[in-house]
Amino acid sequence: MRRVVATGTFDIIHPGHIYYLEESRRLGDELHVIVARDGNVRHKPRPVIGEAQRLKVVQALRMVDFARLGHETDMFQPIEEINPEVITLGFNQHFSEEELAKALKERGIGARVVRIGEYSEDLYSSTRRIIERILETRRRPEPEARKDGT
Amino acid sequence: MRRVVATGTFDIIHPGHIYYLEESRRLGDELHVIVARDGNVRHKPRPVIGEAQRLKVVQALRMVDFARLGHETDMFQPIEEINPEVITLGFNQHFSEEELAKALKERGIGARVVRIGEYSEDLYSSTRRIIERILETRRRPEPEARKDGT
Repeated sequence: MRRVVATGTFDIIHPGHIYYLEESRRLGDELHVIVARDGNVRHKPRPVIGEAQRLKVVQALRMVDFARLGHETDMFQPIEEINPEVITLGFNQHFSEEELAKALKERGIGARVVRIGEYSEDLYSSTRRIIERILETRRRPEPEARKDGT
Repeated sequence: MRRVVATGTFDIIHPGHIYYLEESRRLGDELHVIVARDGNVRHKPRPVIGEAQRLKVVQALRMVDFARLGHETDMFQPIEEINPEVITLGFNQHFSEEELAKALKERGIGARVVRIGEYSEDLYSSTRRIIERILETRRRPEPEARKDGT
C-alpha cells in the first residue's frame, strides 16, 4: 500500500485543487490529505471558511481516501502517523522541495517530495485569484470611482 | 435504478452543497447533477467561477454519479433525458415545490419534487454568505473608513 500525502488550506475548492489532488492520488494507492488549521495559515490571509468546513468539503472529494486537520503545533506529527511514501506540494505552496525533504529527513521521515505542476486550463486555479475576482466584481463602488460627479 | 436529479449553480463549493447532494443521493441509487449555465443565472449575481470549472468541481464529488451543464434555453430537456424519479431542491432554491411539480407535469415528466432542508451546522451554507464574508474581511478600506484623518 503506497500512501501519498497532500496538504493545503483548501479554502474555496476550485479545479486547481482537484487537479492537484488527482495528480497526487495517481502517485500511489491511497491519498491522505492534511487540511491546514485556521491558526496555522500565516503566510497568506486567514481562510474565509473555517477548518471544520474546509475538511468536510475535502472529505467529499472522490479521489481523497482520508482527510484530517493538521496538528496545531507540529506539522510533521500527522505525516509521521500516516507514514507515506510520497508527499506532494502544490504549484504555489511556499515550501521548496529541498527544504521540505531536508526537514522530513531530520525528523526521520523518508518520504519523497513531489511538486505537482500548475493546472492551467483556466484562470481560477488559485483561491487568491478567485477572491481577487470577487473583490473586483462585487465590491461596492468606492466614492472616487463614481461617475456621476457627486 | 432510481435516478435522482439535483440542480444548482455550485459557484463556491461549501458544506451546504455537500449536505444537499448527500441528502439527494440518499433518495435513490444514482445522483445526476445539472449545473446551471453561466447565462442562465439571472436571479442572483453572476457566478464567480465559470460553468466548465463549476462542472469539474461537482464531478469530483464522491456522491455525484453524473454531472452535466444545463440546457441553454430549455431547463427541462436534460431532466427529460435523465428521466428521474426524484428531483430535489436546495433550501434556498427559488422555485416552489408546487410550481416545479406543476411545470414538470405539464411537460409530461412524472418526477416527485423533494425540498432538502438547510444545513445548519455552520454559517457558510450559502455562497452569498461566503462572498459577503470575503467582502467584509478582504475589502480595501474605503476612504471614509480611514482612521488617520487623511
